[in-house]
Order: sequence, then C-alpha cells, then structure tokens
Amino acid sequence: MTQERGATRSTLPEGGVVPPVCTPLTPERELDVPSLERLATFLIENGMHGLFVTGSTGEVAYLPDETRYRALEVVAGVAAGQVPVLAGVIDTTTPRVIEHAKAAKAAGADALVATAPFYAPTHPVEFPGHFRAIRAAVDLPLIAYDIPVSVGHKLPADVVLALTEDGTLDAEKDSSGDLDGLRTLLESPVPVLAYSGSEVLADVSLFLGAHGLVPGLGNVDPAGYLRLYDAAKRGDWDAAQSEQTRLRRLFKIINVGDGRMGRYSSAIGAFKEGLVARGVIGGGTTSEPMIPLDDTERGAVRSHLAEAGLL
Amino acid sequence: MTQERGATRSTLPEGGVVPPVCTPLTPERELDVPSLERLATFLIENGMHGLFVTGSTGEVAYLPDETRYRALEVVAGVAAGQVPVLAGVIDTTTPRVIEHAKAAKAAGADALVATAPFYAPTHPVEFPGHFRAIRAAVDLPLIAYDIPVSVGHKLPADVVLALTEDGTLDAEKDSSGDLDGLRTLLESPVPVLAYSGSEVLADVSLFLGAHGLVPGLGNVDPAGYLRLYDAAKRGDWDAAQSEQTRLRRLFKIINVGDGRMGRYSSAIGAFKEGLVARGVIGGGTTSEPMIPLDDTERGAVRSHLAEAGLL
Amino acid sequence: MTQERGATRSTLPEGGVVPPVCTPLTPERELDVPSLERLATFLIENGMHGLFVTGSTGEVAYLPDETRYRALEVVAGVAAGQVPVLAGVIDTTTPRVIEHAKAAKAAGADALVATAPFYAPTHPVEFPGHFRAIRAAVDLPLIAYDIPVSVGHKLPADVVLALTEDGTLDAEKDSSGDLDGLRTLLESPVPVLAYSGSEVLADVSLFLGAHGLVPGLGNVDPAGYLRLYDAAKRGDWDAAQSEQTRLRRLFKIINVGDGRMGRYSSAIGAFKEGLVARGVIGGGTTSEPMIPLDDTERGAVRSHLAEAGLL
Amino acid sequence: MTQERGATRSTLPEGGVVPPVCTPLTPERELDVPSLERLATFLIENGMHGLFVTGSTGEVAYLPDETRYRALEVVAGVAAGQVPVLAGVIDTTTPRVIEHAKAAKAAGADALVATAPFYAPTHPVEFPGHFRAIRAAVDLPLIAYDIPVSVGHKLPADVVLALTEDGTLDAEKDSSGDLDGLRTLLESPVPVLAYSGSEVLADVSLFLGAHGLVPGLGNVDPAGYLRLYDAAKRGDWDAAQSEQTRLRRLFKIINVGDGRMGRYSSAIGAFKEGLVARGVIGGGTTSEPMIPLDDTERGAVRSHLAEAGLL
Repeated sequence: MTQERGATRSTLPEGGVVPPVCTPLTPERELDVPSLERLATFLIENGMHGLFVTGSTGEVAYLPDETRYRALEVVAGVAAGQVPVLAGVIDTTTPRVIEHAKAAKAAGADALVATAPFYAPTHPVEFPGHFRAIRAAVDLPLIAYDIPVSVGHKLPADVVLALTEDGTLDAEKDSSGDLDGLRTLLESPVPVLAYSGSEVLADVSLFLGAHGLVPGLGNVDPAGYLRLYDAAKRGDWDAAQSEQTRLRRLFKIINVGDGRMGRYSSAIGAFKEGLVARGVIGGGTTSEPMIPLDDTERGAVRSHLAEAGLL
Repeated sequence: MTQERGATRSTLPEGGVVPPVCTPLTPERELDVPSLERLATFLIENGMHGLFVTGSTGEVAYLPDETRYRALEVVAGVAAGQVPVLAGVIDTTTPRVIEHAKAAKAAGADALVATAPFYAPTHPVEFPGHFRAIRAAVDLPLIAYDIPVSVGHKLPADVVLALTEDGTLDAEKDSSGDLDGLRTLLESPVPVLAYSGSEVLADVSLFLGAHGLVPGLGNVDPAGYLRLYDAAKRGDWDAAQSEQTRLRRLFKIINVGDGRMGRYSSAIGAFKEGLVARGVIGGGTTSEPMIPLDDTERGAVRSHLAEAGLL
Repeated sequence: MTQERGATRSTLPEGGVVPPVCTPLTPERELDVPSLERLATFLIENGMHGLFVTGSTGEVAYLPDETRYRALEVVAGVAAGQVPVLAGVIDTTTPRVIEHAKAAKAAGADALVATAPFYAPTHPVEFPGHFRAIRAAVDLPLIAYDIPVSVGHKLPADVVLALTEDGTLDAEKDSSGDLDGLRTLLESPVPVLAYSGSEVLADVSLFLGAHGLVPGLGNVDPAGYLRLYDAAKRGDWDAAQSEQTRLRRLFKIINVGDGRMGRYSSAIGAFKEGLVARGVIGGGTTSEPMIPLDDTERGAVRSHLAEAGLL
Repeated sequence: MTQERGATRSTLPEGGVVPPVCTPLTPERELDVPSLERLATFLIENGMHGLFVTGSTGEVAYLPDETRYRALEVVAGVAAGQVPVLAGVIDTTTPRVIEHAKAAKAAGADALVATAPFYAPTHPVEFPGHFRAIRAAVDLPLIAYDIPVSVGHKLPADVVLALTEDGTLDAEKDSSGDLDGLRTLLESPVPVLAYSGSEVLADVSLFLGAHGLVPGLGNVDPAGYLRLYDAAKRGDWDAAQSEQTRLRRLFKIINVGDGRMGRYSSAIGAFKEGLVARGVIGGGTTSEPMIPLDDTERGAVRSHLAEAGLL
C-alpha cells in the first residue's frame, strides 16, 4: 500500500507553489485558448511547481464539461511534463465526480482534486466511500479538497488520516481556514502532504509545516508567492512575512466590487483584470451570473498592481 | 408579459400533487427502465397532477448526465401528455444549468426546475441574472427551487416577486421550511404559483394558500397526498390534518437508518424500499456514496408501511 | 407525578393570549411605573389570559436586576390574581437563573420562563440538569423557552418530552419557528402545553394544536390576537386567517428602522411607539445600545396603526 | 485622546501571558477562597504578566454576581499591585454590563473585558454605542472581547479600529479563531493592543504580532506558555513552535469527557482536575449544569499531565 502511494505521489509536487489557474474567456464566454496558453507559460516561467486547472479560481463551477476538459488539455499541452498538472474534478457526488475523473485523465491530468459531496446532504460516515470509489475508478494520485465554504462541511481530520493511511489520498488541499485542523493533520504520525489554499496566511501555513501553496492570487503575482515560499523553506520567517504583507496588500484587489456584487464576482474579476493589466491574457470576461467589473473597479485593480510594483 | 407567462404556465399544473419521482437503479447502479416505467404509471394512475423528474428525491445530484436525461425520456414517454413532466436542471451555476435545460427540453420536459447557484459563492444580487439567462436560453416554463439546505442560501422573496413579475419565473417550489416566507409570497399582489416541498406540513402549506405539493413520500403513498390535497381544496381542514397526521407517522420511515448513515441515505433508501415493498419497482439500490439499508432497516420500513395500511 | 404537575399547572393559563409585556422607560431609562401600570391594565381589559413579564420583548436582556424585579412587582400588583403573571428568568446558566427565579417568586410571579443555557457552550445532554435544578430550587410552574435565535441551539423535542413527563416542565414557549418540531411535541402522547411566540404564524400554530400565543405585537393590538385566538378555538379558520393577515400587515411596523439599525431596535422601538400612539404609555424610550427611532420612523409606525384601525 | 488612552493603558500589560483564572469551588459550589488564593499566587510566581478574572474559563457565565465580585476581590488582594488584574464584565447588554463594571472597579479591577451584546439580537451598527457607554460609565481601561462562539457574531475590524482610535478601547482579546482578522487589526496604522485567546495557535498569534496570550491552559502550565512567549519575543520561532507542540499535546486533556458531556464541561473539568493534580487547588468541582468528570476521565487528565512532565 505504502509503496503504491509512493509511486503515485511521485507525480505530485512534494511542495511548492501550485496556483489554481484562471480560465480566460472570450467576450462570448468561450474558452480563450491563446490566453490560457500564455497564462500557463507565464506561470511555469515564473517557477511554479505545478498547475491546478479547473479549481474554484478557474471557475470550475461555471464551466460546461467540454470547456473544463479543453482547458485541461490546453494546460497539459503547455506543461508537457515540465510541471505536473492537477485537475479539479468538482461535482456533487461520486458517480458524477468519477465521470470527470475519467475525462481529466484522458485530457492529460497528472493528479485529481476532489471535494466531499455537496448539494446532496451527506454525512461524514459516507466520505470514505466517496473518495475510495473515485480512487478505485481512476488510477491517478488523489487530493482531497477541504473547502467548507463551498461544500458546507469540513473534512474531519480522522477521515483524512484514515484515507491517507490506506493509500486512497495522496494529499490534502486545505481551503478551510482552520489552521488548528491543518496543524493537527501535520502533527499526525501519518505523513499527510498538505497544500494551503490561503492567499493571506500562506506564510503561517508554511510555518505550521504545510508543504505547498495554492493561491488564487498566484495567477497575478507568481513571483511573489515563490519568494514567500523560498524564504519559508530556508527558515527566513522575517522575509516570508514581509512578502506576505506585500501580498496581503495586493490581495485587496478582491474587494474592488464590494457592495455592487458578490465577493466572488469581485475576486475572479480582479484576478483576470490583473492578468490583462500584466499583458498575460486578452480580456477579463467572467462567467454568468457573475457581475463584471466596471471601469472604476478595473482602474482600482490596476492601481493596486502599480502600487505592488507589478505594472 | 402577463400574457406570455399565462401561455407558458398553461403547461404547468396550476396546483395538485406533483411528486419528485424516485430513480430506480439496477444492482449495478444503471437506470432500471422497466421499474421507472412502472413507477411513473403507478403515480399517474393514482391521480398525480404532474411528475417531477430528477429532483433531489430522484437522486439528481448523483446521476451522471446520461442517466438524468434517460430517466426524463422514460417518464415523458409514459406521461405522454397525460400530465406535465417537470425536470430538475440542478447544477452549480448558469452555464452548466443551461446545458441541462437544453437536454431536458430535448428529452421531453414540459417545465424546468432550477435552484440558485451553489458551490460557487454567489450573492443574491446575482440571482436574477442566473434565472433570466436560463429562461432566455430555453423556452420552457421555469420554476425556482428554493432549497437552502442544499444551496446554502434562501431565495429572497423580493427576488422571486421581481422575477415573477417580469415573466422569468412561472412558479416557485419551496423546500426552505420558511412558512413565513412562503406566506409573504402568497400574500403579495404578484400572483406567485407556489408548490411546497414539505412532506410533514403539506396541510399547513395549503392552508397558507400554496397551490401544489411536491412530497418525496408521495412516491410511496400518492393516494394519501391526493386525499390530503382534495380535502384542503374543499376546505375540510380536519380531514386534511387527519391525513397529514397519518402521513407524518409514515414519514418516520426516513429515520430507519439513523445513527448508521446520513439522513439522506436513510430517506432515499426508505422511499425505494417502500416502492419495492409495494411491488412497484424491482430493487432498492441507491447511488454511491449512500450507505444501503440493511435487513433490519428494510424490515422497519415494511412495518411502517403495514401500519399505514399500504401493504 | 402527573398529579403534582396538574397542581402547578393550575396557575398557568391553559391557553389563550399571554403577551410579553413591554417595559416602558422614562427618558432617563428608569422604569416608568405609571406607564407600566397603564399597559398592564390595558392588556387585562383587552382580555389577555395572562401577562409575560421580562421576556425578550420586555427588554429583559437589557434590564438591570432591580428593574427586572420591580417591573414584575408592578405587573403582579396590577394583575392581582385576575390573570397569572409569568416571569422570564433569563440568564446564561443554572446558578444565575436560579437567583432570578427566587427573586421572581418573591416579586409575585405565578410561573417562570427559562431558556437553555447560553453564552457558555452547552451540550443538549446538559439541558435536563439545567431545568431540573431550576425546578428543584423554586416551586413554581416552569416553562421552557425555546428561542434558538438568542441561545444558539434548539431545545430537542425528546428533552422537552422527557422533562414534561417527569414533571420538571409545565409548558413550552416556542419561538423557534420550527413548526414541524412544534407539531412533533403536540402529537406526542405526553401532554405538552405549548405557547407559540410567533406573531405571523399564530393561526397556523393554533391549527397545529398550540394552546396559547405569546405575541410581542399583542402589546399594540391585544384585541386582534384575541379575535384570532377565539376564531381558532371555535374552528373558524377563515376568520382566524383573515385576522392573521391583518396582523401580519400591522407587524410590518418592525421594519421601520431597517437599514439604519438592527432589527431588534426597530421592533422594540415600534412596539413602544405604537403604545405611545395609542395613549397607553408615556414615551418610547428603549434601552442602550438600541438605536432610537427618528421622527420619520415614528411617523411610519403611526401610519401603520392608522391603517390597521388602531388610532 | 491619545494621551488619555496612554494613561489608562499604562495599567494594562503591554503583552505577556495573562491567563483567564479558573474559579475553584467547594463541593457545595461556593467559592473556594483558599484555593483561589493559592492559584493566583501560583500564577504570579510562575511569571504571569497579569491575571484575567471572571473570563469564560473562570466560569463567569455560571457565577452569581456575588461570587464574581468576591473572586475578583480575592485575586486583586493576592495580586496587590504586582500584576494587573483584568475583570470580565460579561452580560447580555450595556446596562447590565455597566453594573458589573462598577462592581468590578469597586472590587479592585485594573481593567475591564467586555463582549459585544448577546442574546438580544444586536446589529454591528450598535456595537460602538455599547462600548462607548461602558467606557463612559466606568473609568478603567476597556478591552473588547471578540468571542463569536459565545456571542454569535464577530467584532468587525473596522469597529475595533474606530473605537481604538477614539480612545474607547485599549485592547482586544481575540478568541475568534480568525487569524486573518487578527492580522488585519495588527497591520492597521491604528495601534491595536491584541491578546490572543488561543491555546493551540499561540505561537502563530505572536508570529502575527499579537502582544499577549490569554490561554485557559495557562492555569495548568503557566511556565510552558511563558517559555513560548519568551521564545517568540526573542524571535526564536523554532523554540516557540516546539513549546507549542508540547502544549497542544497537553491541551488534549479537554477531550477526556468527549461523548459523555459537552466540550465545555470536559475542558473546565480538565483544567480544574489538572490544578488539583498539581496540588494548587483543593477540588475540581464545576458549576451546574456542567457534568463532572468521572474517575476514568480524571485519571486521563493526570496521565496527560504526567506525560507533559507536570506531575
């Protein structure tokens, strides 16, 4: 069991920065392939250790199946083995997730990222069966995605530990904001490979022993998160914290639309506008029903980027 | 506007009992077509005013797309215009819902049932765009499905009223448990057609003016809900309440698995086992990762049915 | 046991309308005794079956101990045995509640109303000990007050039933909004005496078998709730519902301050202003830190009252 | 304004470890004065920078007023100016808190710790008036206590900053678990003095810039938290983290009663049993309705202490 886990793990980044890649769209809301290729290239050239496609930041919950798989193919094509490509296989329950998992493998994914079931009321006692069935159906490393804000419940530490121990799970991506829970996993004798999804407590997550980072803001400033990560790796906590402070300030771009739209419209809109401003992608269109940023809000994004030295 | 709404509404049951149809599965978890045909026939013969396919009770969150659409085709084939067929087009956000809506229309749906966005954090200010885009994409009556337990937020009354007034929505299915909110809709000068999803307060919902019922337990005892509905329609509240009391007792079948599984595994398992016991469907298999009922639990379902005079 | 319970119950209204009495304050925020005397008289003359002092509507959570007990004395003095006086003994946990219970008995209370513990995280397994200790310490009928919005958890039906069966509890006041839970209590073979705290679903609560009503709006329109109650008692649901519809419209006074203050500031301010407008109390001062209504908002309260035929 | 704030702040520990002192009770649940004196002495001798009396760990929500004030007098008597004594003035709303604040000043408190209103639904727009009225009524440094698990809402950062800026608040005690929010306060140009209430992320809180710690477990192992604090102060994060790891293991004593009682009964029972085991207090009695630890559970506490080298 341990041996096999080791085997699959080898295709997973053992740490580092693995940004959840934005999904550029044309004004007609089709996949903007050239922009996505440029974005993947930009991230790899900036030293990212892997790319996470069709995650929450990648608007996975908005993309039709074909767009999901096509985005994955495009990024896998650019990555071409240079860095692993993780695919979010996000859907309500096991059979639907398995369909995505099969398609993701076919499209070139090196690993899968799956949440607990959502929409259908599901009890933690049913989580192990969910992850085991996914792992059994598709032979790729499997990362549990703990994101209570989206799925409505926290992945209990004992479930993650049991599923790590029996080889079902190869890693956890923690977007729960529960640092005590993350620390509990990392203190366990079971060796859990943990990525943090936090943009604003990335330094703290690494301080607690997390292995990697999956920051949405890493689309806009991959070099910043790489500096933060490298500083933490060499134990230079002052430098890590100082970089984090800079990135926290930049992260305020996600609030540009506050009051006029939901937080998510504002955040995804801001990441994309940041990428437009940096010349990486062609346009900042987001999926329906997100409300687009207006001129003032886009201007505010650019001001933040300028202040952060990114323009 | 009103005229058009009237036009599409004509294919919607203006009231009555519209059960969310269970989706029978073979032991291999494929769609059990003959069982589904028998179930649709059973419900129509018992006087149901419409059939709601791929709702929560129909395990929509567990069914792969092909199974969803095939189930709809089967039921639409049996209904053959005798009663309208409503299709749940349940997915995370607008573009994905629209894909289901198109497929549902092609498969024979007479109306669509859609929730607010879920998984992706969405603000109420974004709900109107969601429903309007669905309505614009597929020309079928549209029913808003208010189910906070699954989507994480309540559909605000002012959103439902505005979207009813402009012809986007033709009805609301209320599974929120918020009777004050339901009453607010029904008291409004805007004529909202409202279905209640409650098995246990169906009489009260009709007392408040709701037009129809969508009870999962209606799979097992359609005649009971019809008696309740008819009593309410003629203003015989004693009879309605007495039937409700009987159905509340029967509804305890959903607790047979308590402690050993989630509430949903237990409820869906119990409805299916009830249909097996009544000779309507061939087997009680449920989707992964739901935990199956064991012999004792199945026996408990049958005891409840016997007590309710259904065996 | 049953016998003893019967004994204590005899001092409890077996039903009827028992409004939670507002606590009039002078501009200096001292108890306005003459106004409170007039209010108690007004309510009794309007046929109320009991008076509930120092409930949530009575600003119990704002009143210093001495004001609480003095308000109770004043109302008990006016009631003088004509109707029972219930006292809210609202505090965080058992020892503090017992202190209030002793003081309330000394001040003339006929029965006590206590919530589950709050602030201190408390598990349902600890609720029975809480209520039993209160009942053992002070020999007065005890009413469990189920108000999750304030205490953070629902009183489970099995706890209420067990404590009713063993004679600890004499009644339940349900402000949970959970009509299914209320119905479960009322269907039980254990005879639970239940009051509903809902202003807007009072008719429905009586339809489900609730014995009494505790509506905050009953301060302003006691005659309306009495008509509703009497209609329900004689089974005239159309009349009950029609009166409820009128009272629902009047209840909109609680929203006059929306956007400028919290819901509670607006509601308590509106009840008091309504009593001023009807000439019952001398002023509408509310406790700190509630925000006072301004002239426009007070005018809006009066318009609603005029529309309801109360001025 | 700044000057006055400086003036009052001078009596507040500008950082350090300020444990929330347990309140020892006799078997009859009276205040155990000799034990409390020994506990205060023990904590001061172990280098604590201040003592926080009648906090959540001190069972404030369970203690009758007289016991609260007596406990404060006892500790203030032992402290005798060696270290400041902070008093929790915990009650539902402003007028009741002010009564406690006056009594606390009379009993010798050097500073006050108050939460936002609870039980009474209160809107954030009403928080400033609450804290300002307390500060105006009693001239002692005022610490805002952010504890959403008990009061049901988070103290918004902008409220804390505004009230710090205008001299109302002298510090914040953060028991919200929201490290991002804490960091936002600490990054602000407004100089917020912040204490963390976390036992398990104390090192991280200090890493983020928090000034002090208020750990309940500090009753049992004050020397451990002092070592952690001192290590952090000199920037030795490895040592701080290593001490934290040891304390996290010890903190598992709070789970000894899991499954048989609420988490709080278990935690308070364990802290007190730990103090009994260390010979500091005479008995582990807790307030009603908390369930007492049994022999096995008390044994488990002692095993954890032995393992931590404290016996």
